[in-house]
Amino acid sequence: MKNFSYCTPTRLLFGKGVVEKLPEVMRPLGKRILMTYGGGSIKRSGLYDQVKTLLKEFEVYELPGIEPNPKYTQSVVPGVKMCKEHHIDVILAVGGGSVLDCSKAIAAGACYDGEPWDLISYQVKAQAALPIVDIMTLAATGSEYDAGGVISRTETNDKVGYIDPLLYPVCSLLDPELTFSIPPKHTRAGIADAMNHVMEQFFAEPNTILNDGMCIAALKSLMFNAPKVMADPNDYTARAEIFYTCTLACNGIFCNGNGRSGWPMHGIEHALSAYYDITHGEGLAIITPRWMRHILNEKTVGRFVTYGTGLFGIDANLPAMEIAEQAIQKTYDFFKGLGIPMTLREVGIDEKRLGEMAHHIAVNEGLDEAWAPLTEQDILEILQASL
Amino acid sequence: MKNFSYCTPTRLLFGKGVVEKLPEVMRPLGKRILMTYGGGSIKRSGLYDQVKTLLKEFEVYELPGIEPNPKYTQSVVPGVKMCKEHHIDVILAVGGGSVLDCSKAIAAGACYDGEPWDLISYQVKAQAALPIVDIMTLAATGSEYDAGGVISRTETNDKVGYIDPLLYPVCSLLDPELTFSIPPKHTRAGIADAMNHVMEQFFAEPNTILNDGMCIAALKSLMFNAPKVMADPNDYTARAEIFYTCTLACNGIFCNGNGRSGWPMHGIEHALSAYYDITHGEGLAIITPRWMRHILNEKTVGRFVTYGTGLFGIDANLPAMEIAEQAIQKTYDFFKGLGIPMTLREVGIDEKRLGEMAHHIAVNEGLDEAWAPLTEQDILEILQASL
Repeated sequence: MKNFSYCTPTRLLFGKGVVEKLPEVMRPLGKRILMTYGGGSIKRSGLYDQVKTLLKEFEVYELPGIEPNPKYTQSVVPGVKMCKEHHIDVILAVGGGSVLDCSKAIAAGACYDGEPWDLISYQVKAQAALPIVDIMTLAATGSEYDAGGVISRTETNDKVGYIDPLLYPVCSLLDPELTFSIPPKHTRAGIADAMNHVMEQFFAEPNTILNDGMCIAALKSLMFNAPKVMADPNDYTARAEIFYTCTLACNGIFCNGNGRSGWPMHGIEHALSAYYDITHGEGLAIITPRWMRHILNEKTVGRFVTYGTGLFGIDANLPAMEIAEQAIQKTYDFFKGLGIPMTLREVGIDEKRLGEMAHHIAVNEGLDEAWAPLTEQDILEILQASL
Repeated sequence: MKNFSYCTPTRLLFGKGVVEKLPEVMRPLGKRILMTYGGGSIKRSGLYDQVKTLLKEFEVYELPGIEPNPKYTQSVVPGVKMCKEHHIDVILAVGGGSVLDCSKAIAAGACYDGEPWDLISYQVKAQAALPIVDIMTLAATGSEYDAGGVISRTETNDKVGYIDPLLYPVCSLLDPELTFSIPPKHTRAGIADAMNHVMEQFFAEPNTILNDGMCIAALKSLMFNAPKVMADPNDYTARAEIFYTCTLACNGIFCNGNGRSGWPMHGIEHALSAYYDITHGEGLAIITPRWMRHILNEKTVGRFVTYGTGLFGIDANLPAMEIAEQAIQKTYDFFKGLGIPMTLREVGIDEKRLGEMAHHIAVNEGLDEAWAPLTEQDILEILQASL
């Protein structure tokens, strides 16, 4: 077991009706709020009006239109400018992981005199950040309980995971009913995203019985409840279990004391959505079984045995390689069964730029130091197998 | 799934050598430290000298001699007096759960003008508490990652669980090597204590797949590693897994969203150690299988099936009642196999005061509202079955 340091100061307010607590959450944080949101679904659902009514005692500025795979130039830079101009005290992110990720970068940029990209690219360490509160409407990224965000700079095909402990939200308000209206495409992509977060933590050595069990529990929770919400989007219990599992899944509490994983599937997927702006969770679902097949060997098979027997109940008496093969197939089948497009071509990516992306990933993602190290050639083969 | 609010602001610094980080942890908290500890084992182990050397830039006052099942009059009251007299900035607890529990009550009492018992007995809500840092030497209570402490007032046979979010430690320094010297009696009692914490959270409704899986993972971690540390007290990996699992086990993260449990086994055991000053973990191990047998019925059997099949791998095709009976027997056998005395008589308790204790528990512990409600007669029968 490795040494670790762990602290998550975020308060989770979870359940039906928690949005009503917004004023009491915001009051200690200040008067001047920058409210960030996406493309307008919160207006259609009525959440926008509810929030504005709850905040009538505050001074609220708005940054709408934050895009999926949030963009540096289009959203972070204008957000930082607004914070500085209006002396914003606190940012309220209302929406999915992209809105919150973008808000985290804005929160850090607002307290820094230079170009915000200095912080995101780790050339400069942030000294402070505005406090952040969020109301999440999508169960997926777990940004509501972590200190990171992923920001894209389309000009350079960069998609960077920016992490700083200053960026933990002060409070995340999570009402599962707000996820009822998420369309099937994003419901399943969110589930795939969270499942992949768990897998990125599970596939590492050393590991512990506790962490392995927590990972398997999280995957079981997501896989058991996924078909339920696909069949009935208003199934409160299933939406709630998925939401809370997504919230914990990217926090790190499933891998305290584990060895380095390197998050290889995210490393690969970030290039896909930087180059082609695809849905992150779909990209991950496509990459997952291909990465698994590629790295499976005598040295890695033990992890697949724990995964396959623990998650799918595959007979532990079978040969290890057979257990692994079955587990990988079942992983593929699950995503496919949910309705996720399981080839790159289906999401609009052909072979043309695979080599360029493999090179970009090899140079930028450090996957040669992952638990199962990947060369540029390995990455290219995984991408080709995903076509 | 129930609504919940959850936040644990404590930083965990876990692993070999983390005690060396003590000065940097303490510096932002102040100059004047009250160092609390127990009966002298930290002097024999060299930890006392190490801490004093690390703190040579600080002004350190000492409160030694904090007893197991820490006492209000003997330890809390003098500690509060010292804090006020010496204008203490921060409390450093060095030892096991009792030292830390006592320190939490002192931390609250130090910021209150009246009698500290007002706070502990919830007659008055604390408005502030001194910051607390701990170096734990025993894997057991999980006090290092929760906001509670258990304080005994022998004059009135009270043993009260005092919980307030102000009492989360700022930082817990947890080096598994410090637990190498814990004698077998307290090693196994600590494991039984943590196992019971998990069970108290597991036996509740509603519950979730995630929480159930996390609970089973924690129990597996403890039960797999327990025989290893009994055989080799210096087995780092086993000591580390046990320590970290104990740390998470009382935090509440295994039951977010679950229904009320009522913590019935703790309710019963608190009277045993209040009346007879027995070792808490031993009392819990004795009560556990008897409580299980007593509450097992058609309504509760489902929980036992999840417990028995998940933890012990009992064949899910057997009749539910048979799975439950087997699971209870295996629970008893595990504690017995660890070497824990499994009857009240073995720990010095006979039938004389069972009635009096049952009455005290029924009046004070609210177990009529537990998941499986207990009347005074139920409690008496559980105690009698434990003789």
